[in-house]
Amino acid sequence: MAEAPVRRPTLAVVGATGSVGAVLLQILSQHADIWGEIRLVASPRSAGRKLTLRGEEVEVVALTESVFDGVDVAMFDVPDEVSAQWAPIAAAKGVVVVDNSPAFRMDPDVPLVVPEVNPHAARVRPRGIIANPNCTTLSMIVAIGALHAEFGLRELVASSYQAVSGAGRAGVETLRAQLSLVSGSELGTTPGDLRRAVGDRTGPFPEPVALNVVPWSGTLCEDGWSSEEMKVRGETRKILGLPDLKVAVTCVQVPVVTTHSLTVHARFQSEVTVARAREIIATAPGVVLFDNPAAGEFPTPADVVGTDPTWVGRVRRSLDDPAGLELFVCGDNLRKGAALNTAQIAELVAAELTAM
Amino acid sequence: MAEAPVRRPTLAVVGATGSVGAVLLQILSQHADIWGEIRLVASPRSAGRKLTLRGEEVEVVALTESVFDGVDVAMFDVPDEVSAQWAPIAAAKGVVVVDNSPAFRMDPDVPLVVPEVNPHAARVRPRGIIANPNCTTLSMIVAIGALHAEFGLRELVASSYQAVSGAGRAGVETLRAQLSLVSGSELGTTPGDLRRAVGDRTGPFPEPVALNVVPWSGTLCEDGWSSEEMKVRGETRKILGLPDLKVAVTCVQVPVVTTHSLTVHARFQSEVTVARAREIIATAPGVVLFDNPAAGEFPTPADVVGTDPTWVGRVRRSLDDPAGLELFVCGDNLRKGAALNTAQIAELVAAELTAM
Repeated sequence: MAEAPVRRPTLAVVGATGSVGAVLLQILSQHADIWGEIRLVASPRSAGRKLTLRGEEVEVVALTESVFDGVDVAMFDVPDEVSAQWAPIAAAKGVVVVDNSPAFRMDPDVPLVVPEVNPHAARVRPRGIIANPNCTTLSMIVAIGALHAEFGLRELVASSYQAVSGAGRAGVETLRAQLSLVSGSELGTTPGDLRRAVGDRTGPFPEPVALNVVPWSGTLCEDGWSSEEMKVRGETRKILGLPDLKVAVTCVQVPVVTTHSLTVHARFQSEVTVARAREIIATAPGVVLFDNPAAGEFPTPADVVGTDPTWVGRVRRSLDDPAGLELFVCGDNLRKGAALNTAQIAELVAAELTAM
Repeated sequence: MAEAPVRRPTLAVVGATGSVGAVLLQILSQHADIWGEIRLVASPRSAGRKLTLRGEEVEVVALTESVFDGVDVAMFDVPDEVSAQWAPIAAAKGVVVVDNSPAFRMDPDVPLVVPEVNPHAARVRPRGIIANPNCTTLSMIVAIGALHAEFGLRELVASSYQAVSGAGRAGVETLRAQLSLVSGSELGTTPGDLRRAVGDRTGPFPEPVALNVVPWSGTLCEDGWSSEEMKVRGETRKILGLPDLKVAVTCVQVPVVTTHSLTVHARFQSEVTVARAREIIATAPGVVLFDNPAAGEFPTPADVVGTDPTWVGRVRRSLDDPAGLELFVCGDNLRKGAALNTAQIAELVAAELTAM
């Protein structure tokens, strides 16, 4: 006797035409057997465009209430205010929303989920919404979560080297245009020469980003902190379930297209050994140990871009603290940092729905 | 009655033709009234070249013992092994050597001097040699030293964003060549595309540095640390006179031509206030406070290159530690990071000799 066919859940992708949306469609095409119908949704401006999904052309429809009829799960990758307005509308129709905006991340009734770290949290969603963390948090948290599970994290000091695609297509276009400008020049050698050459063509960044690093990301919060830094602190605490974790982060934009890197100084509850830390990193799901400086092996964005895992290298025990570890971590900010983690959360929900 | 004329001391610049040498000649031309005769010395390969100094052409002479005859002070900016061999030869002839190589920095009989921080140390030089710190240490130490004098430093966690000119002319040429290659391309978007395009044209770096960041600088020391990281730790301890200071540093190369940046997490002996920290930074000699994110003010290499001081921005108190401060610091690695500090040390010695 044939088994009863399993109804595969229906998915809506809201914000299908952005830079994260493009990566999401690739991932959905690779994970083609999870979902039944997939609806691609965007702003009215993008409605009617055709995008390739699972080898077929799919027409983008405009965001309205009715697009959620019969939908089981919706992934949102849209501006903050669009999520704030539309995620509750979808949720009210019984859709489980996986939202990649900051709108709900710190809401105590919305779980903030990284499937390798706190998958159980996805099941408790009083508002019908699950939040996807910020790309900078996601670029390191899988590795940090694995080490925390073993050693117990007490403190984190991190500095980011953030890629311009974190600022969307405009970020990438701005860097490419500035690179054309500086290529073949002597710019970057006298005070202000880059700023004068770039003029107001700084795109989403407050300063030229080619041949430069810019210690600012997001908007100004209290006491001089940037919103990006506050996100990394708040989200790391929430994901790890450590509301009092000491976290100090400085976020810096660098002229890299895609893949965020971070230096991490992590202090644990008790003594750590590099051997055990390396073992954890090498065996944790979603993490790759790439750490042999003698052979020139340490992760860089150029190697990591386009890949799924969190790459970890430069693993050292702090010289002056037997409970401390130093790491260099890279993660593709569009994949694990956004689209992949969103897809993974949605797949957790799909598995739950299919099992019911 | 006319005063007796003061004999201005004689200077030798050993390694006049390198990238630090070029900046040194500019500085010596600006500080033209300090020195009497200035001899420019280099390897036999560069002897006979003419360089502009104090508005005049000066012929470079080859390094031999006799170039030190009658010299009071010699600045060395040459490879490690050349310093190791020749600095003691010059010192044996009564010359005070100011050496910019790592050869003597950790020698207990050689002071390691930053004139704004520990000028007194320059007077005690049992070997006749004074060492100039590494460029990464120098890019932050003036600001850190001023804060230490007030608050008492207990721990430092720093991450560097190092410019390619730290690797000399070859570093700059390598970045410029790679930028021409990536300009107008879509490189940096698929795994390994940059590495394949750049091939073996990585110059002094282990990986492509355009559109990338490379978490490695120097040679491999014990337990996975790089020599650059060990230098920053050892030198910071020695300059501040804190042999047990907790220091954790990760050094990363970025595609910037000149000016090293560092994020700094500094923990002090007691509670700090941002107001007092800003006051110290704003008034310390050799330090500039540039810190008003609301007005887009924070230091970046593009603004700082070609200037003398250490620029400090993003001053925040650690959210989870009232004794902690977060800073973003920029310093021109060829000026304060090398040539300027060397010149300042030599001028301390010149003042001492002239006063005798």
